[in-house]
Amino acid sequence: MHFYLKPKKKEEILLTLKALGDSFLKEIEEGKNPSVEIPTRTLRNVRFDEKNRRLYLGGYVSRRYLLHLAQIRSFTQLAGVAALAKKLIEEDKHVSLRETFYILKRTIPGLKRNIVDEQEESNRAVEDLELVINALREQLHINANKLGAVAGNVVIRDRGDLIDWSKLGSGGWSVPSNVEDIEFVKVDAKFVLYIEKSAVWERLHEDKVWKKLNCIIVASQGQATRGIRRLLQRLNYEHGLPIFVLTDADPWGIYIYSVIKFGSITLAHVSDRLAVPSAKFLGLKPSDVKKYGLEKHLIKLKEIDKKRLNEVRNYEWFKKNKEWQREFDLMAKMDAKAELEALAARGITFISDKYLPEKLKNEDWLD
Amino acid sequence: MHFYLKPKKKEEILLTLKALGDSFLKEIEEGKNPSVEIPTRTLRNVRFDEKNRRLYLGGYVSRRYLLHLAQIRSFTQLAGVAALAKKLIEEDKHVSLRETFYILKRTIPGLKRNIVDEQEESNRAVEDLELVINALREQLHINANKLGAVAGNVVIRDRGDLIDWSKLGSGGWSVPSNVEDIEFVKVDAKFVLYIEKSAVWERLHEDKVWKKLNCIIVASQGQATRGIRRLLQRLNYEHGLPIFVLTDADPWGIYIYSVIKFGSITLAHVSDRLAVPSAKFLGLKPSDVKKYGLEKHLIKLKEIDKKRLNEVRNYEWFKKNKEWQREFDLMAKMDAKAELEALAARGITFISDKYLPEKLKNEDWLD
Repeated sequence: MHFYLKPKKKEEILLTLKALGDSFLKEIEEGKNPSVEIPTRTLRNVRFDEKNRRLYLGGYVSRRYLLHLAQIRSFTQLAGVAALAKKLIEEDKHVSLRETFYILKRTIPGLKRNIVDEQEESNRAVEDLELVINALREQLHINANKLGAVAGNVVIRDRGDLIDWSKLGSGGWSVPSNVEDIEFVKVDAKFVLYIEKSAVWERLHEDKVWKKLNCIIVASQGQATRGIRRLLQRLNYEHGLPIFVLTDADPWGIYIYSVIKFGSITLAHVSDRLAVPSAKFLGLKPSDVKKYGLEKHLIKLKEIDKKRLNEVRNYEWFKKNKEWQREFDLMAKMDAKAELEALAARGITFISDKYLPEKLKNEDWLD
Repeated sequence: MHFYLKPKKKEEILLTLKALGDSFLKEIEEGKNPSVEIPTRTLRNVRFDEKNRRLYLGGYVSRRYLLHLAQIRSFTQLAGVAALAKKLIEEDKHVSLRETFYILKRTIPGLKRNIVDEQEESNRAVEDLELVINALREQLHINANKLGAVAGNVVIRDRGDLIDWSKLGSGGWSVPSNVEDIEFVKVDAKFVLYIEKSAVWERLHEDKVWKKLNCIIVASQGQATRGIRRLLQRLNYEHGLPIFVLTDADPWGIYIYSVIKFGSITLAHVSDRLAVPSAKFLGLKPSDVKKYGLEKHLIKLKEIDKKRLNEVRNYEWFKKNKEWQREFDLMAKMDAKAELEALAARGITFISDKYLPEKLKNEDWLD
């Protein structure tokens, strides 16, 4: 099991892709049936690794054959994505999942059917290929969506530009979908703060929190994008920076934290390459409501919130954590959630001047 | 009617806010009933200005009194937001609409009711204040959401930093929610391209379109944020740059264009401060499907698409435009929409190397 996949050199990935294609050709030439082994990505094969604390794929694998009536299509799709990835890396171009779908929606000379007809097919082929050649799809030059901004005492090199995250005005650096090729030139920060709301990021940025607390602040809107998760992971593994997650006191915020820390079920096959098991929850806790006098600003839980709360609290990693269970109990008892913005009622800059410094000083976070 | 509101000096806005407060105090001291005149923001007061081609508020106004059982609450809310805005400008701090709500969810000494109980109330008070003192809420330091990235041959000054939009690697500059205080130091570009999808922005950015075509590329996800609309307007008015809008060939993309160009019904009261009436549609047209051989990549219209198509095609400004009506007819006849990413089927960089240069050269856009 790989715990951290350093950004690979393009050449390595290219060699792996070529080796895969060569093995298919060789088997055909030898009159054999080309095949490839792929770990099964079904729920029953998703496990939680107690020791290393993250989701991963279990031992179920299946072998997929070219000359097999039920498998020829998915085999061809996998080969199609591999060929596209090789081309992309060679030409140093990147595409989105949606573009990948349109590019593969074509026939092969001599055949009448498209390689793929639906995006689900090309998406699945991309995920299969990630497993087969043990690389993230970002390393195959197939990108997810771009979202989010970052600021802090960091200098990076990217596409030949030297970029200083501390000198980008009110906007910050826009985090790309793919951070594999970013080179960290200077990292002068003690920790990283991921914020689930861009409006709160703007609050902290205006209050110069990254300067005062010597940290990096990064946000998207809601779930962290793959680009941001990978950025957090690189800062954590390559530069030893602790990662803190700042969200609302609601089941959705806690789920955002959970995905950053342990990975998600749908992306369990890459969680070792995206998750940060040491991440800490610095967001609003249900018990903070009383502590910070936010009783007036509670928002009653809706049915959908309650349902989500019950799902999240029963995740294996939360189930065994008494502190978390106390907070879940309290949320259920209050029958209410609370938002980060409610801290503005205590003062416009309360979150920057009091909440964050206090929490950090008292190590008032959850694991 | 104001067609373009240059970023106001903080001092001006502060004086206007103070004058408003003073007038209330004076009327109270004189034993009068303080009041304020506000244009009505109902649909029947939203007009389309044929000559200047944008939505605006008609002549209906209403006067709101402090000592009036049905109005005391909304009057107090307006005064509450005005007091907050004054404080924000004086302290040089910004807040979001959500923070505004939490800050105003408090009682006034001697009274038992909160100034506001729901965010709708504080939102409405902010919109009222925009009209009363003729300023954008961004100028009152109350920000909308932040989203999107920009790249191009532009240098700006923002919060003391000198930021070069051509030297920010793969990410670009993250556009803040508020662009009022940005100072343009160098603008070396012929036009601006707004793109409705960040994945397509990354395509154009990787292909160096802004360098090759000497333009600025900017994107959010879907509807342009207020920050981006204002950025487009400033580049258009202050620097004479034409604005082009690049979207899918579907009713939603055309609506995004429509809002950038003419304004939206809900924000009609500020459309003269956000709209760019000279903007052009450079997105995929239904007639482009045949031209670029995308027949294979059509997506059948759903009921919700058809409904939206009928709404959009009946907007006053599209109704009188024969070219647009032909395109709407064609979309209805094909019973299908098409996405920008489909151009990837013609070649990974087709959109950058062929589509855009050809469209621009042949002036193949819609008004």
